[in-house]
Amino acid sequence: MQLERIRLSTLHDKIMSAEQAAELISDGMTVGMSGFTRAGEAKAVPAALAARALRSPLKISLMTGASLGNDLDKKLTEAGVLARRMPFQVDNTLRKAINNGQVMFIDQHLSETVEQLRNHQLRLPDLAVIEAVAITEQGHIVPTTSVGNSASFAIFAKQIIVEINTSHNANLEGLHDIYIPSYRPSRTPLPLVKVNDRIGSIAIPIDPAKIVGIVFTQQTDSPSTVTPPDAETAAIASHLVAFFEQEVAAGRLAPNLGPLQAGIGNIANAVMCGLLNSSFENLQMYSEVLQDSTFDLLDAGKLQFASGSSITLSERRNKDVFSNLERYKDKLVLRPQEISNHPELVRRLGIIAINTALEFDIYGNVNSTHVCGTKMMNGIGGSGDFARNAHLAIFVTKATAKNGAISSVVPFVSHVDHTEHDVDILVTEHGLADLRGLAPRERARVVIEHCADPMYKAALQDYFDRACAKGGHTPHLLAEALSWHQKLDEQGTMLA
Amino acid sequence: MQLERIRLSTLHDKIMSAEQAAELISDGMTVGMSGFTRAGEAKAVPAALAARALRSPLKISLMTGASLGNDLDKKLTEAGVLARRMPFQVDNTLRKAINNGQVMFIDQHLSETVEQLRNHQLRLPDLAVIEAVAITEQGHIVPTTSVGNSASFAIFAKQIIVEINTSHNANLEGLHDIYIPSYRPSRTPLPLVKVNDRIGSIAIPIDPAKIVGIVFTQQTDSPSTVTPPDAETAAIASHLVAFFEQEVAAGRLAPNLGPLQAGIGNIANAVMCGLLNSSFENLQMYSEVLQDSTFDLLDAGKLQFASGSSITLSERRNKDVFSNLERYKDKLVLRPQEISNHPELVRRLGIIAINTALEFDIYGNVNSTHVCGTKMMNGIGGSGDFARNAHLAIFVTKATAKNGAISSVVPFVSHVDHTEHDVDILVTEHGLADLRGLAPRERARVVIEHCADPMYKAALQDYFDRACAKGGHTPHLLAEALSWHQKLDEQGTMLA
Repeated sequence: MQLERIRLSTLHDKIMSAEQAAELISDGMTVGMSGFTRAGEAKAVPAALAARALRSPLKISLMTGASLGNDLDKKLTEAGVLARRMPFQVDNTLRKAINNGQVMFIDQHLSETVEQLRNHQLRLPDLAVIEAVAITEQGHIVPTTSVGNSASFAIFAKQIIVEINTSHNANLEGLHDIYIPSYRPSRTPLPLVKVNDRIGSIAIPIDPAKIVGIVFTQQTDSPSTVTPPDAETAAIASHLVAFFEQEVAAGRLAPNLGPLQAGIGNIANAVMCGLLNSSFENLQMYSEVLQDSTFDLLDAGKLQFASGSSITLSERRNKDVFSNLERYKDKLVLRPQEISNHPELVRRLGIIAINTALEFDIYGNVNSTHVCGTKMMNGIGGSGDFARNAHLAIFVTKATAKNGAISSVVPFVSHVDHTEHDVDILVTEHGLADLRGLAPRERARVVIEHCADPMYKAALQDYFDRACAKGGHTPHLLAEALSWHQKLDEQGTMLA
Repeated sequence: MQLERIRLSTLHDKIMSAEQAAELISDGMTVGMSGFTRAGEAKAVPAALAARALRSPLKISLMTGASLGNDLDKKLTEAGVLARRMPFQVDNTLRKAINNGQVMFIDQHLSETVEQLRNHQLRLPDLAVIEAVAITEQGHIVPTTSVGNSASFAIFAKQIIVEINTSHNANLEGLHDIYIPSYRPSRTPLPLVKVNDRIGSIAIPIDPAKIVGIVFTQQTDSPSTVTPPDAETAAIASHLVAFFEQEVAAGRLAPNLGPLQAGIGNIANAVMCGLLNSSFENLQMYSEVLQDSTFDLLDAGKLQFASGSSITLSERRNKDVFSNLERYKDKLVLRPQEISNHPELVRRLGIIAINTALEFDIYGNVNSTHVCGTKMMNGIGGSGDFARNAHLAIFVTKATAKNGAISSVVPFVSHVDHTEHDVDILVTEHGLADLRGLAPRERARVVIEHCADPMYKAALQDYFDRACAKGGHTPHLLAEALSWHQKLDEQGTMLA
């Protein structure tokens, strides 16, 4: 049964244990691994590498698509394997190592990593470790639940280790659409004009001679940590649904809204759940990660088609979806993250981008990454790829965090990931601020009025009024601009 | 001779004075006018409008391509005409009105204004005023020295006033390439794959019945204010040329570098002059504004082709170029700014984007717009369109301003227009910092070492060292982060 998954029989002699495969990785290497939103990561080899490093230390630069599951970033960090890490992560142990300066983390727009590799602006991976459901007759690699950066990593690497994961349904084959942009200066337009266009191949085309090891595994993807909507996230969803209804009524959005992107996490997932109970039909997604809500919308007949780079589901949903994959297969496609997040396509398709903010300021600047301007949370992920080229760039957050000790609406964000030029709509449980066509002073009024929590509204208004008295296109009081974060850092609260 | 410029004779009865045309603009209107980098703006009608408003007050929302010449923004501001202004300006009087809150200024990515109009996210212009060299037999409008947003303004407006400017050489006709993206959801790829591709028409296709007035004028464009390179800008250019040489030697850039974009202003112009004395050949530009340096490079046989949205020249160069236009015509094209700056094309072509920073911080965030975080200088212009999708996003600035009282390299920028995720290379007269593939702490070291002025180097290093002791992915001391700007604001200097 295992051998059937390697359809090019000359590769059968490459089968080895994860421990043997991990020995192929040496100190100082740059390694590209599969994995995006904790889906489809190589599992056995990185775990074996961490175990080996505990005995015999080594360091590598690790690139992935995005986050890994199965505590792999934790294990690799604890074993001291990670010298450099890019372009995204969500692990608590790795986060600490990044913030204390032990691991050099390069926080990138997810569409850009392989473009920079292609142009030799980053060091090419010496070796790629890619999870697969199968290897084809041609020796090409069929990915599993994510494509991420796997295709380009495999194409660029001198050596490839394939992890064939038999826990994944073999009929994932056919779900993927692998398209690699041509090299400049003769690059041609990306031929995708509809979310369901297929423009590439179903497997990663590589020279099978580069495959130096094949490892079998049957460890499953980690389940999604997304929780069901609560009162606040449901309120955020309802504000956004009401906004969409107004936009359609005004003729500014098509009746089916147009292609939707929703970031990973509870709030964006809640917004998609909100659409489930709305009157919208024939919805389309052109997104990164397909979550539980995607399949709820498909099941309800609300969603026509979903394009993504990965599928990350809860334990409950996982079994149901993957054991009934044929039911969904003609309504889904998984693409490289370079294509799911590509500026050319985001602008052409007119994507409505819904992403989570850590905080935003009264003028519409958004911080997605840094707590108190210094500590990395996860990374910018694809939010920038979408927001800066989207038809509508929407950011959502709860108005407060830590039982009210933190206001998500601040005078001046402590770090900027999305500038005032790129942000259209801000939403909290209290309401929605439409910033389109507004000057900064006008934006401040709607942000304070619609988004701020009542606990912080007066203080924000007071800051804004006093700043306006001082003047400027974007009025600020420099001595106070970061005082809210200072107070949080020193006293554990922003509250006066 | 004048009538020859209106080749659709049924329009001859639309000829009127500028004063008569200005009467067609009423209080509360949204008006779109031609003009980009002080080139090709409608001249007589806005001046007549300002004169009229002094007698009989009215207010409008004014959209242009970018900046206007001939002191028009000054005149309109002084006459109280401007309620709202977008997407860019460079006028000192208007700047003051923006900063004291009198004029609502919407500072936009230059590629996005007409996209937002097309999608009804901004109010459509009631009326467009477009400078032209001629009206064709079909009643289509042939622009002058800029295209800017003129084509879409004319297409969207219910009424059009055409200013035929006979100071412009009639053989500007044929220089323009007017392409308008199709509407979503059936938008097709922009068919441009080389900088010299022509994909549109040579005139703006409109229904001639919309033309409600034709005004003749012969006022010239204002000359460029660009000054010749000085010691610092020449040093910046030489650092950048040396960097390009290294990149070519390393195989990371093509021998001709690839398409270049250079922002308006002295420093970017000096960089292009630096290329004149370099060994590079067969250069190509895919930029917004074509300046003196573009024609110097063409004359020297260094530049193959230049695509832009406007031509803005010094007094000396102006006469020479436009009276010998046939010499250049097959090496030039002027496009709508939506196309010259389009994310799809910037990414596809792999543009090297060279733009001026007002200040940048040790982690690579760039402020292009706000003095001390509050006062608008000009606007972001096209710098974001290019930087966020470019092959190489380069920002240049002198290391200090105001005789050393201001350091352009600061601990924390007071406003972010280009985030750390979008900035590749920073250059001052002291050197070049290559930030590609670096984590924030690594970036800080190269920025301080290569770009900071010796007067400020120790203070920056001290800030960084103490911030690192506190920790974080992007170490900062919140109480001090903006203290340099505070000191500048209060004491007129950042110097200790």
